[in-house]
Amino acid sequence: MEIREATTGDWDDIFPIFSAIVEAGQSYALPLGLSSEEARSVWMESPPARTVVAVVGGSLLGTAKMGPNRPGRGSHIATASFMVSPNAERQGVGHALGDHVVEWARSRGFLGIQFNAVVESNRVAIRAWEKLGFRIIGTVPKAFDHPQDGLVGLHVMFLDLSQS
Amino acid sequence: MEIREATTGDWDDIFPIFSAIVEAGQSYALPLGLSSEEARSVWMESPPARTVVAVVGGSLLGTAKMGPNRPGRGSHIATASFMVSPNAERQGVGHALGDHVVEWARSRGFLGIQFNAVVESNRVAIRAWEKLGFRIIGTVPKAFDHPQDGLVGLHVMFLDLSQS
Repeated sequence: MEIREATTGDWDDIFPIFSAIVEAGQSYALPLGLSSEEARSVWMESPPARTVVAVVGGSLLGTAKMGPNRPGRGSHIATASFMVSPNAERQGVGHALGDHVVEWARSRGFLGIQFNAVVESNRVAIRAWEKLGFRIIGTVPKAFDHPQDGLVGLHVMFLDLSQS
Repeated sequence: MEIREATTGDWDDIFPIFSAIVEAGQSYALPLGLSSEEARSVWMESPPARTVVAVVGGSLLGTAKMGPNRPGRGSHIATASFMVSPNAERQGVGHALGDHVVEWARSRGFLGIQFNAVVESNRVAIRAWEKLGFRIIGTVPKAFDHPQDGLVGLHVMFLDLSQS
């Protein structure tokens, strides 16, 4: 699996994944029904943030974006978001992207990584982030309207990098 | 004290407050050194969000903005930000703006209000929000670089409106 910077030419492969995941509605509080152009401006980042893709045998199977969680006096904490193709689940793509983000944040000198809104019922993601060392800082109750589970909480998760 | 929707003409009175508070660096992780035009696009909201001002005897003493905290499946939780003129502290302006925001969110049917990043050492603000019924959901450690206090935590605070 290769993880590399996303290029403009990748967008046609990223958008179907973005669209499938956002419209399924199980993991992201992003606007629904975005056009390809609108979604691109949400997902494709510019410095100091960046977007990467995970490619296996020429197929784009996942993508992540990462950058400072806040500007100014909060810019020493990173954040990131992840999307794996629904056709490529349980193949380690999410884990590989997670490892990549942690290494990126560590190498850039960020003191931690914060996930602002991890859907409480998305147990596969929570387990993956906990394996990477993230812990749940707190849970905003009923903050996500899940199509099957109803109103569920959103976890704030955090990985401390200040000792590393 | 009158609290009303901010108009375009208010910006010249809002910007000095915005600028003084952001540059003092004690309460907001916003970009530093913004021009008036850049700051306006940060602070002056459009529907479904809105910006209000607090006016006493013709003087603009504070401002707040409020709206959905997230789009899509998270849009039933509100958020808000507040700024009070450094010349008008301890006159109840923040409390009045806080009451206004809670009433607005309640009347619009939001199920809760989330503050994403309350600086841990900003005890006046925390006490004010706790009086309004907010509680601390969790604290991201060392997430804010305070000019006097060093690295301090950022609280996520939440007010449940789902019973009201």
